[in-house]
Amino acid sequence: MQSLIGDAQTIIKRTIEENMPEVSVKNVLRKHKISQEGDVYVAAIGKAAWTMANAAYCTLGTRIKRGIVITKYNHSKGEIPNMEIIEAGHPLSDENTIIGTQKVIDMVKDLKARDEILFFVSGGGSSLFEKPLEGVTLDDIVNINNQLLACGADIVEINMIRKRLSSVKAGRFAQICAPAKVFTIILSDVLGDRLDSIASGPTVPDMTTSLDAMNVVRKYNLDVSDKIKKYLSEETPKNIDNAETVIMQSVRTLCQSAAEIAESFGYTPLILTDELSGQARQAGSFMAQIARQVGKGKYSIKRPCIIILGGETVVCVKGKGKGKGGRNQEIALAAAEGIEGMENVVIFSLGSDGTDGPTDAAGGIVDGMTAEKLRQKKIKISEVLDDNDSYTALKKINSLIVTGPTGTNVNDISVILVG
Amino acid sequence: MQSLIGDAQTIIKRTIEENMPEVSVKNVLRKHKISQEGDVYVAAIGKAAWTMANAAYCTLGTRIKRGIVITKYNHSKGEIPNMEIIEAGHPLSDENTIIGTQKVIDMVKDLKARDEILFFVSGGGSSLFEKPLEGVTLDDIVNINNQLLACGADIVEINMIRKRLSSVKAGRFAQICAPAKVFTIILSDVLGDRLDSIASGPTVPDMTTSLDAMNVVRKYNLDVSDKIKKYLSEETPKNIDNAETVIMQSVRTLCQSAAEIAESFGYTPLILTDELSGQARQAGSFMAQIARQVGKGKYSIKRPCIIILGGETVVCVKGKGKGKGGRNQEIALAAAEGIEGMENVVIFSLGSDGTDGPTDAAGGIVDGMTAEKLRQKKIKISEVLDDNDSYTALKKINSLIVTGPTGTNVNDISVILVG
Repeated sequence: MQSLIGDAQTIIKRTIEENMPEVSVKNVLRKHKISQEGDVYVAAIGKAAWTMANAAYCTLGTRIKRGIVITKYNHSKGEIPNMEIIEAGHPLSDENTIIGTQKVIDMVKDLKARDEILFFVSGGGSSLFEKPLEGVTLDDIVNINNQLLACGADIVEINMIRKRLSSVKAGRFAQICAPAKVFTIILSDVLGDRLDSIASGPTVPDMTTSLDAMNVVRKYNLDVSDKIKKYLSEETPKNIDNAETVIMQSVRTLCQSAAEIAESFGYTPLILTDELSGQARQAGSFMAQIARQVGKGKYSIKRPCIIILGGETVVCVKGKGKGKGGRNQEIALAAAEGIEGMENVVIFSLGSDGTDGPTDAAGGIVDGMTAEKLRQKKIKISEVLDDNDSYTALKKINSLIVTGPTGTNVNDISVILVG
Repeated sequence: MQSLIGDAQTIIKRTIEENMPEVSVKNVLRKHKISQEGDVYVAAIGKAAWTMANAAYCTLGTRIKRGIVITKYNHSKGEIPNMEIIEAGHPLSDENTIIGTQKVIDMVKDLKARDEILFFVSGGGSSLFEKPLEGVTLDDIVNINNQLLACGADIVEINMIRKRLSSVKAGRFAQICAPAKVFTIILSDVLGDRLDSIASGPTVPDMTTSLDAMNVVRKYNLDVSDKIKKYLSEETPKNIDNAETVIMQSVRTLCQSAAEIAESFGYTPLILTDELSGQARQAGSFMAQIARQVGKGKYSIKRPCIIILGGETVVCVKGKGKGKGGRNQEIALAAAEGIEGMENVVIFSLGSDGTDGPTDAAGGIVDGMTAEKLRQKKIKISEVLDDNDSYTALKKINSLIVTGPTGTNVNDISVILVG
């Protein structure tokens, strides 16, 4: 039997591998029945658009008649046969956004019912895929956005307004594709995976109504032109019958991969949440408190087990700006304090993109001896956390997880492994 | 089938009932084989000493030859036949502490091997049961305590020193009782239930050594007299064969009661931790994140279920001092934000003593409609939490748990119930 720490390292490696876009795009396309009679087109938007489109080309080759990729500046990794690659502004849309989006519209607007569009969506898709409705400018959208921010509207309200001024959001892109079918394949970095909020849902029915939108206008007494008011009062598509959506990858699949892999090693898996948020340090302490309960009795989780939390926490910056670290490293270090002295427990946390904060580490991995190892180096965990200096401390005792940039980005995974 | 909220209320009521000291003392004494030949004595120390001693009298009656109760000022509820009740200082020991402790010593020091002492320990026991060793004064102890605090020693180090200067702590009371047997019955408000730290362990072997203690003296360069140095270098008892200990009640039994009761209603129980600590608001959010995962798939907790967290969180005071609330009410309210719109989920949190913060409520109970109910009253949860004003908000929508003082005190219980 392998050591607990060895198992942890294997789980980390294989979980990342299984969640590489290249692998998942192939798996999804193999399972999906692609139109056999018509032509196949690719539209890919977001920060992972190039990787996803390239994986589609590697799987389907010349079955793809044409493709358009809109990604962030410097995110293209070269030519892809039959595809046009446009780089545009992120997080703010720019002229290239509209040019690229128009090209996608032109490609799909006159297709036949037997044709199919593979629509790849990843993080950043909302700003990278945008064309305001006739007579609305990007400036109009920025203006109304600023008004909403100034009066304290929440993100749900802001999106409700913004997507109604777009010709491709809130299900409207699916309408443009009709009668052709559109198969949307999502790489999500949004917690909770609400389809209509990922990239503002270009191919899914909008869950909000024009009444909701007009209520927001009244609530905040927004200053909007008559044209915009007219658009806001128009209903978004509620029935879309030419679109199908699959979430190819998200923090949920990341958690599931870890659970499956650990299960094959004999650990009983439990996904506690795939929407972890809140303060990293507190999350690490909670994980330690949970670890201490494992095997304690009839109503506690039985060992050996793996307890998985996926999501994205935040670091409360308290240090004087000199510390170096990241949210995953803080989780690991805070957990180390709580599991001191325990045998057979390993806790780790890492970002699936391989980058945790402004460091070259993906995260941290700790066990019951970590606190003592640090103490021997005169390092006190509570002080390190107060200084947000988790990287420096973990590095000194070889407890960083270093993967390099992985090529995927579906948030973070935090794991308690009990042997 | 009862409603989820109805089940929650029944679980609350019965969990508290099962953890009343009166009930548990009787249960423990019925299971325990009391000395049949010799005499039975009672020593009870701590804030619940009167209740525990009285329950012992109600169960054993005149089998108890004599008893001494040392409790906090104003904590006696009247005479108990054959027992002497002494009220003393808490959290600081005073003259009455030493008088009471001496009476206990006098009662037990010349007993026979066939005699038995029932030793009831509850919160506050460490300061209410104290007699410094010959030649040491309470002032000496206060002085060394202040030195330790000033140089940043932690609680483990402080206790290591303090208990070595006591004639009754760190197993020494058991030595005084010998050859008589001593049966220690603990009502614990200490998370983690480390026997040698509850009331500084009068009847359990001390896990620390004189070498550890002398290292603390050197580490902080403490200014101590030769006499005290001599005491610190003397070993505390490591083998105690006349003592037996049972934790009659603690946050652990509280969690187990809730699990058993809910299980009898058909909920699958899971105790996630009985050492919950950290910020109340973060704990509430964390509970909501866990609730959202229930039933989500193969590796998630199955419904219907009850997920239990026991412990003691803290409130981060951010409001301007005008808010009213408590840690359990903050947990409930923070959770309400995270479960908005969910059906079939109830989350509650309460203090087992029936008092949460400076309010007349024990805690709060919320569900998926709580956030909307508050919104209709123009109350925004995030603002209420920023103002630490959970009581006012929960009261307005009838979501407080009000039990009145319960008579027990084993910390808090926080529960996710999913139908």
